[in-house]
Amino acid sequence: MRQLLDDIIVPAYKLNKVDEGVGLPEMDDGASIPFGGRHLIVTTDTYTVKPLFFPGGDIGRLAVCGTVNDVAMMGATPIALTSAIVLEEGLSVEVLERVVNSMGETLEELGIPLVAGDTKIVERGGIDEMLITTSGVGLADRVVTDSGLRPGDKVILTGTVGNHQLSLLASREGLNLETPIKSDAAPLFGLIYEAMKVGYITAMKDPTRGGVSGALNEMAKKSGVDITIREEDIPIKEVVMSTCGLLGLDPLELANEGVAIIGVDEDSSKKVLEVIRKNEYGRDAAIVGEVQEGGGRAILETFVGGRRVIREPVGSPMPRIC
Amino acid sequence: MRQLLDDIIVPAYKLNKVDEGVGLPEMDDGASIPFGGRHLIVTTDTYTVKPLFFPGGDIGRLAVCGTVNDVAMMGATPIALTSAIVLEEGLSVEVLERVVNSMGETLEELGIPLVAGDTKIVERGGIDEMLITTSGVGLADRVVTDSGLRPGDKVILTGTVGNHQLSLLASREGLNLETPIKSDAAPLFGLIYEAMKVGYITAMKDPTRGGVSGALNEMAKKSGVDITIREEDIPIKEVVMSTCGLLGLDPLELANEGVAIIGVDEDSSKKVLEVIRKNEYGRDAAIVGEVQEGGGRAILETFVGGRRVIREPVGSPMPRIC
Repeated sequence: MRQLLDDIIVPAYKLNKVDEGVGLPEMDDGASIPFGGRHLIVTTDTYTVKPLFFPGGDIGRLAVCGTVNDVAMMGATPIALTSAIVLEEGLSVEVLERVVNSMGETLEELGIPLVAGDTKIVERGGIDEMLITTSGVGLADRVVTDSGLRPGDKVILTGTVGNHQLSLLASREGLNLETPIKSDAAPLFGLIYEAMKVGYITAMKDPTRGGVSGALNEMAKKSGVDITIREEDIPIKEVVMSTCGLLGLDPLELANEGVAIIGVDEDSSKKVLEVIRKNEYGRDAAIVGEVQEGGGRAILETFVGGRRVIREPVGSPMPRIC
Repeated sequence: MRQLLDDIIVPAYKLNKVDEGVGLPEMDDGASIPFGGRHLIVTTDTYTVKPLFFPGGDIGRLAVCGTVNDVAMMGATPIALTSAIVLEEGLSVEVLERVVNSMGETLEELGIPLVAGDTKIVERGGIDEMLITTSGVGLADRVVTDSGLRPGDKVILTGTVGNHQLSLLASREGLNLETPIKSDAAPLFGLIYEAMKVGYITAMKDPTRGGVSGALNEMAKKSGVDITIREEDIPIKEVVMSTCGLLGLDPLELANEGVAIIGVDEDSSKKVLEVIRKNEYGRDAAIVGEVQEGGGRAILETFVGGRRVIREPVGSPMPRIC
């Protein structure tokens, strides 16, 4: 996929940004369009998930949160969303109704309108019941990218890692866990907005596909720095840790849908952490590492004091039992 | 589909517009967001077409033109597009490359950048090789909607009708036509921009799904007027007319991708027509009818002088031979 993007898709578009804004080649969470001294942010993403309903959420809430978070990761406040839904022929009206109602409720909770949409139907057999492509529009005073990390910055993780993808795997594989794992799908722009008010955020990314490992690698490479994080400081639920151990999964490679990695100026890092921890979606936030001069590596200081390079995940994590 | 939209999808979103902008319930070609005295326009649409490549275009050019036209139909100049592509597993890299290159070339021709994207892969069997969801962002000084028609307005059709869908049908069914029919997929915002400079445009819509019949019905209902068009004035190619006759198709119900229906103030209608006819995509433009007070009907004055109500198309037109 990465190769498809680099070799075929990105080069196909010679016009790929507006003026000095963030565009397609940056492959950031969204694009920015300079606009009267401010920045319009646009993002797009297609969501497909099996099963459609899972502990802690559903594809509708996921699509809304994912797009709202992409807008937030660019330093912007979301203004409006659009949604293009593709339905598998024969999908029941009840299922569709539950999903769009969940989208509507999540948007209402956030105070963001859905202003335009499209609906298409395709033949049975290829897609998992439905696809939702949501696009988001937001407004930023200052654009925050993946590439803004500077040596000396602190790195904050805003929540516990691994919950989302592990909850999906558990529900798909019918795992019977003593403590059920719930997806963390959550909208983060309120949290980000508060954080940006009290401190200087240098970079942000939400560790979705590829998890924390993938996001840290991208941020380090794009910023031209090394990032070192301490295993003991990473917020993770006991049940996620033990289930990952059991299944042979690396929790840092699991996709999250309600967590952000935030680079922050050292001086304001304590204040930023404090504000984030007061937010309902940031209670488990922690400073997990620092940025150093370097060549684009993500490094883990392990529990036992060793240091190892965090590799970029290849493909999607699969449990050993599959 | 219409019922799904009215009963399930639209009501799911209680927040459905920004301030006094055009939002989801209007089901116009896009939404408008009031923005510093001007209007930001956003649109989204999923494109699926079989075959991917057809006389006069391909799914990539179609997706770009369709979205650019939706932005233009709201009275706006497009600023940027995003694209979310869903690929059927096993699709060849060559096919993907041809499609994204076609998108890139069309955008370059228009001077519009593609600023953000997403790519997903789904299992074989459900979708026709690929789906492309394009979203567009534009800027308008004045928003033009479907509902702005006023009694006395003239109605302009900017090009010959029926070419797009008939070219698809012909190529799918392997029809051997003496004169090949080419899709009209074309970007219209240049033409619209010129027209808006010289006259007062009251309403616009591109007759895609549902064709001219569907679009006229929507405009008449939303505007609370009747529209009468004259069959003899409708621009249509000889080969489209005869092929439709042969196949039992109504050319007014066929989807177009490079034609606009424009309502224009009577006083400026001749000037607007003149300007449109100078544009490469408007050479066959004609004033085809007028708007009267009424209850939302579209009426056709036939060749032989009769008058009949144009019904709203139900489903997609199928040739008799299928």
